[in-house]
This record gives sequence, C-alpha cells and structure tokens, in this order.
Amino acid sequence: MEKFIILGERIQIMSPEVKQAFIDRDPEPILSRAKDQLAAGAHYLDLNIGPASKNGEELMVWGVKLLQENFDNVPVALDTVNAKAIEAGLAVYNRSKGKPIINSADAGDRIGMIDLAADNDAIIIALCCAAGVPKDNDERMEYCQTMLERGLSLGMEPEDLWFDPLTLVIKGMQEKQLEFLEFIRQLTDMGLNSTAGISNASNGMPDALRPLVNRILLAMAMEAGLSSVILDPGAPEIMDVVRTVNVVLGRTLYADSYLEL
Amino acid sequence: MEKFIILGERIQIMSPEVKQAFIDRDPEPILSRAKDQLAAGAHYLDLNIGPASKNGEELMVWGVKLLQENFDNVPVALDTVNAKAIEAGLAVYNRSKGKPIINSADAGDRIGMIDLAADNDAIIIALCCAAGVPKDNDERMEYCQTMLERGLSLGMEPEDLWFDPLTLVIKGMQEKQLEFLEFIRQLTDMGLNSTAGISNASNGMPDALRPLVNRILLAMAMEAGLSSVILDPGAPEIMDVVRTVNVVLGRTLYADSYLEL
Repeated sequence: MEKFIILGERIQIMSPEVKQAFIDRDPEPILSRAKDQLAAGAHYLDLNIGPASKNGEELMVWGVKLLQENFDNVPVALDTVNAKAIEAGLAVYNRSKGKPIINSADAGDRIGMIDLAADNDAIIIALCCAAGVPKDNDERMEYCQTMLERGLSLGMEPEDLWFDPLTLVIKGMQEKQLEFLEFIRQLTDMGLNSTAGISNASNGMPDALRPLVNRILLAMAMEAGLSSVILDPGAPEIMDVVRTVNVVLGRTLYADSYLEL
Repeated sequence: MEKFIILGERIQIMSPEVKQAFIDRDPEPILSRAKDQLAAGAHYLDLNIGPASKNGEELMVWGVKLLQENFDNVPVALDTVNAKAIEAGLAVYNRSKGKPIINSADAGDRIGMIDLAADNDAIIIALCCAAGVPKDNDERMEYCQTMLERGLSLGMEPEDLWFDPLTLVIKGMQEKQLEFLEFIRQLTDMGLNSTAGISNASNGMPDALRPLVNRILLAMAMEAGLSSVILDPGAPEIMDVVRTVNVVLGRTLYADSYLEL
C-alpha cells in the first residue's frame, strides 16, 4: 500500500499574515509556517498565492524558490488559478524530491490546467466539479471521467491525477457527507488517487468542535481509501489520526512508539 | 439509516470486582456499572457471567432481574456459553424495551445458540469463526453463510443475526486489520447487521495508546458500515466518536450542541 500524502495548507493568502508577507516579499512568516508544517509531518507544502492577477509570475517564482532553497528542495503544490504564474513557478521548480503538484483543475473553466500538468510532468489536483457543487455522485463521476480521459490522452499517468470530490460543509450540507465518502470509495475501487481539504467540512462550527470533526472525518475518509489530504498537520492530534490509520491499514509497522516515529 | 447500537461491556466476569459481586450476589457494583454505562449512552447492557457451569441458571436470572428491575426493563445481552443459563435468563426477561441478545453463537460448537435465539425471538451475536481465528475472509464468509442459513431456516429475520468478524489484536495480527474492515464492508453490502468488540484490537498496547487506537478503529469500522459495537461507553471520548460519525452519516441532525445531546 502506498504512502498517504499530507499537503500542508498553511501557506495561503487567506491568512492576513501570509498575504502581508507576500506583499512585502517577507520570507520570515512563510519560512516559519513551512518549518512548522514539515516538522509536524507534511510531505508537500501548498503555496496558495490566490488569483494573483498582478505579479503572479514573479510571486510564484519567489515563493517556490524561497521554500525549495530553505528546505532542501521540498516538494511544493503550486496553488493559484493563474496559469502563467504556475508556468513561471514550474520553470524554477527543482523536482529532485518530488514532482510538482498543480492545484487545481476542474471540469469547467479550469480544465486547461490538466494540459499544463501534462506538458510539465506534474501532478494535477482535479476537482470533480465544473460550475458550483455537483448535484450527486453521477455528476461527480462524469467530471472525473472527463478529466481522466483528457489527462490520459495527453500522455499522463493515471496516478498523477488526484481527484478531489469536494469537501462540503457539514453545517448546511450535512446530507452530502455520505456521498462524499462514497465517492472516495468509488475512486479507490477504480484504482485512482484522491485528495480532499478535509477541514472545510467543519467550517462554521464552534472552535471546540472543529478539530474533533476533522479528525473523525479524516479517519473515515482514509478508511474509504483517500490517498492524500490537504490540511494543517499542526492541528490538534490530526497527525495521530494519520499515524494510527496507517498502522491499522498496514502502511506502517506497529511499534509501541509509533506516534513518535 | 438505522440507529447505531452500543452494548456496554463493563458487567463482565473478567473484572475481579464483578466476579466477587456475582459470587456474593452483591447488587451494588453491578448497579453502579449499569448506571454509568447507561448515563454514558449504552443502549444494551452486556451481562457476562462467564462459563458459569455451576449455578449459571440462578446467576443469570439474578442478573437479568437486577438490571431490568432497577433500570426500567433495560435491554440486556445474555453473555455466557452456558445454554441452560441463557434459557433461564430468557424466561424472566422483559422485552418491553427491546429483544434480548444472546452473546454468542459461532459456526462450530456454539452453533446451537442460533436455535435458542430462533426459539425465543432473540437477537444472536454470530461470531464468524468455528475453531480458532479464520485464515481469511472467504472462511469468515463461509461461517457467516452457514449461520445465516441456519437462522433463516428456523424462521429468524436476517436483521436479528448480528455478525461479528472477530476483532483481532493489532499488536501481533496487524496484517489482519484490513481484512477485518473489509469483512464489515462485505456484511454492509449484503445488508446484514454487524457488531464487534473494538477494544480487543488494542490489547497489549501501552495504556496511553489504547483509547486513541480504539477511537480511530471505531470511526473506520463505522465508516465501513458497522451497525453496533461492544465497548465501554465511558472510555475517554469514545462516545464523541460515535456521535460525530452519526452526524457525518446523517443519523443525527447536526446542531452545535450535538456532543451534549
């Protein structure tokens, strides 16, 4: 069984601190978040620069180099809707520790991101949606097939498409959660890779509940076969969940000290 | 989706305190454990009197009456290999709050317990084993089919057979855990009820690890479709797992206060 991959989500423009650091080209807040996430167990660092319609290319190049130069060519997920910025980032990306991830394509306006991944031997996160939330899993599967065929026709390996079923908010779309888990299982049964931004599910819940809900949903999604996740690996006990599921599923050999390994 | 059923496991002869209370016919330790488990969320109380080859009938009658008279006819799982003791307990059992459970049959020497359940309109916990640990899920499924056919031929409803895949110790049988989860999923796909003594999986682990492992394995097993569980509902945060999974699976309507409901 393959390794379960953790993408650290904390370098993202939605954080006021990160946004300011991007504006000022201030390395410290970025490096500090990178360091914490790697220490907590992240395999990839997501670098979310937002739409970045101005200066996106230069900002992505700055960010990719900053992370890779300071953390031994750590693999990075290039996260923006700005294709030019992604291309610029890929041009300076060092792949010695892992292929770049492009975050993300969908089956609608952003389907061209798959072509970009194919042209650059990158992994693509493929959101199973086009415009808005898919009404059911049949619709999700249609989008999945469309993107898979496009990738394969351009010479991609199927394992380089990581399908994201779209994590929906429990508070508001509670009745969609079962579908979410079933879709992950469908992807698993098809032998496809999957990923999800698990913590979106607990948006709007009281702070005291969110870590618990994220932990339980992650365990359930991993049981359904989820092969990677986008989260904050420093969140309370979340990595204990990953480590424990990895033991149960036989990915890690059990030792009494397995939480510390 | 049906309610997930919790069987409280704390009234069992393996506990020295319970054993002594059985010998002395001392109600207090039994009532105290019953009260705690019901307050924590147990739906059924397991009453494990051991093999009870001497006085089993009288002991089971005492235990069933003690629990039901003090807790408003709480439903009880009659837990012993002594068929005569179970028959005696069933004779005094009040089913106004739920059918009795017989714990348990297997596909070997204890298959006659299914007949007892059929004769008494009881639920049977059906261990998917005969002698020793099944070597794989094909063997488990053979036992499951044998017991299902026997129950149906005697007029039982399929939902009254709760199949137990046999929880195996992670420390020692780590490679069997995936099978365990897959078997639960097979039962789910067949529309059959299932149950498991989840905490057995963490036997032999350091005390600091056991609650975590039990919680995560329970979340995974529930995701695979487990329909009931045998555990101590007072164990740290274990009922938070049940309540959270019930929200994710849509069995409970989400409210910010769902952990307190």
